[in-house]
Amino acid sequence: MIDPRYLILADHDFGIMTSKTANAVIRYQPSRVVAVLDRQLAGQTSQEVLGFGGDIPVVGSVREGLALGANSVLIGIAPQGGQLPDEWRGWLVEALQGGCDIVSGLHSFLNDDPLLAATARQHGRTILDARRPPADLPVASGLAKDVDALVVLTVGTDCNVGKMTAQLQLVQQLNARGLRTRFVATGQTGIMIEGWGIAVDAVVADFIAGATEQLVLRGAAGADVMLVEGQGSINHPGYSGVTVGLLHGACPDAMILCHQPTREFLGDYRTASWVKIPPLAEYIRLYESIGSAVYPTRVIGIALNTFDLDERAARAACAVAAQETGLPATDPVRFDPSPLVDAIVAAEDAKRRSRAAALS
Amino acid sequence: MIDPRYLILADHDFGIMTSKTANAVIRYQPSRVVAVLDRQLAGQTSQEVLGFGGDIPVVGSVREGLALGANSVLIGIAPQGGQLPDEWRGWLVEALQGGCDIVSGLHSFLNDDPLLAATARQHGRTILDARRPPADLPVASGLAKDVDALVVLTVGTDCNVGKMTAQLQLVQQLNARGLRTRFVATGQTGIMIEGWGIAVDAVVADFIAGATEQLVLRGAAGADVMLVEGQGSINHPGYSGVTVGLLHGACPDAMILCHQPTREFLGDYRTASWVKIPPLAEYIRLYESIGSAVYPTRVIGIALNTFDLDERAARAACAVAAQETGLPATDPVRFDPSPLVDAIVAAEDAKRRSRAAALS
Repeated sequence: MIDPRYLILADHDFGIMTSKTANAVIRYQPSRVVAVLDRQLAGQTSQEVLGFGGDIPVVGSVREGLALGANSVLIGIAPQGGQLPDEWRGWLVEALQGGCDIVSGLHSFLNDDPLLAATARQHGRTILDARRPPADLPVASGLAKDVDALVVLTVGTDCNVGKMTAQLQLVQQLNARGLRTRFVATGQTGIMIEGWGIAVDAVVADFIAGATEQLVLRGAAGADVMLVEGQGSINHPGYSGVTVGLLHGACPDAMILCHQPTREFLGDYRTASWVKIPPLAEYIRLYESIGSAVYPTRVIGIALNTFDLDERAARAACAVAAQETGLPATDPVRFDPSPLVDAIVAAEDAKRRSRAAALS
Repeated sequence: MIDPRYLILADHDFGIMTSKTANAVIRYQPSRVVAVLDRQLAGQTSQEVLGFGGDIPVVGSVREGLALGANSVLIGIAPQGGQLPDEWRGWLVEALQGGCDIVSGLHSFLNDDPLLAATARQHGRTILDARRPPADLPVASGLAKDVDALVVLTVGTDCNVGKMTAQLQLVQQLNARGLRTRFVATGQTGIMIEGWGIAVDAVVADFIAGATEQLVLRGAAGADVMLVEGQGSINHPGYSGVTVGLLHGACPDAMILCHQPTREFLGDYRTASWVKIPPLAEYIRLYESIGSAVYPTRVIGIALNTFDLDERAARAACAVAAQETGLPATDPVRFDPSPLVDAIVAAEDAKRRSRAAALS
């Protein structure tokens, strides 16, 4: 799609954490967004709802989005399980009839929906299912461990703590330091932002690591640093398999641990208060031991997501995390990301020297 | 399928480790097998090739299998990646034309093969893709942790070390001790033997734990002990995601660690000699820490696969494993499985007492 102008569907959810796709596209690609659809917030702006995104209007109907020049509808929610809310099907038909393409990151592929597929065909429009995995993925064979670029993986204490956002905040500074840096998307939102990637949680289970390996090999060309987007958490009762497959497929030299300090329990299970989030040191121990069982790796910094703390509490949380772990810690969205950038620069330098020494 | 009489396709591979589906079906359901197809070994018997399976003949063509009364062809190999060897497609057409159904555990679904699907339709035959996952699997919600039955998961130092076989060897003795015991199949071979199950390595990555949870909940009805089939290994570069998703979805109370003492490197990577198999104590540490991050669990015994050792070396290997780990260790196929049965009986008793105490 050339020059997409998105109407983002985020009805009922805009501004809360389940609209993370909407939020990230607005944060990193605001010029592509003409409007957000959320009937409850219609009339406000993105700036008013999210605190960023400027004058991007929130509208209450597809019709208004089309009138503002949208040529594409982007599904901006990522509900657990990934199903399409029934009500939205009618809106998508209206958008296709109005000349829009559709971009979706849902688990249920819209191209498999007979009504939507037929409508798209009839109107000459395209439906892109960002989560549909490529055919013929391999079982991982360990090739990712041999790339020259420094591979940095974000890992988390839970889902939805800012693993993608933390890395996107580092790209600019790393490039400014002279390191050619590439973000490697492993989820639908990252794919929508970068234009390539594989949603590793949507591949057949045997190929999680293999899909990740393919991404690392593709991203390595001409890169000094690769920031590989992590998924889930090592102690997440539903998604830990994706987390570990990704970890072993990427063969990261270094990891950045992402955490939301106000969270007490694994998020999706909060009502059941089942899995309590252990101390950061315990996560570091788990990620380093399970990761290094395949390829030696270590956590080199902590990225906190402090959006729900006031500034003083946020700074205190960073100080506590740094003290607890002995590692650089910051909120790279809210504060200066330099501590994490410095840690990555040092790790890249060490890997380059070690490779050069091995060759000489 | 009522009263299947299998011709097992294992061409080129019968008797070696990639024919594990063939071997297991012959070991646990010999009365259902009329012949094995392997052109190189045609004329021998299963007993001569495997050391079990009696007079089951090895034949060199589909025609011979049909003449022996086969009404079903079972794909008996499980190659890395799971693709159908091209040459076999013609044999399957011949078998369908000859009145056979087909049972396959391959990753590539035979029902999606236009030629095979058309031929099956034309001749009124059925193709069962044992690996095709059910629709609408859930994300795991932790329900497996609440079942009353003792959940025992086999975990391994690698793929293909006998995780399924170890458990199948325990069922009879556990039942004889008065514990209603159910084997829960998570791979295609187990599904072919038990008649139900889900191949968890074939589900979409987000649903590995959810699929396992469904199996545990279904298996729990009327069972005192559930033996859940493990997959892969926690340090397997390709399949660790499946291993960990299964571990967290099953919420096992206890684990049995399976190992082949002669193996030095993770098998699929042997040529590259990449990942060296660490000591058993290291595996126990990894499985217990990652498993207990979601639900408390511990390794209660060691099952060795000593098929490639002479008896004296095999007994010595069991003694060494027991000494190294402080746990009961045996080869439950070759020797008396009692040490593992005793450990499970004790764990079941402890769980029942602890549940009763919590209720009173």
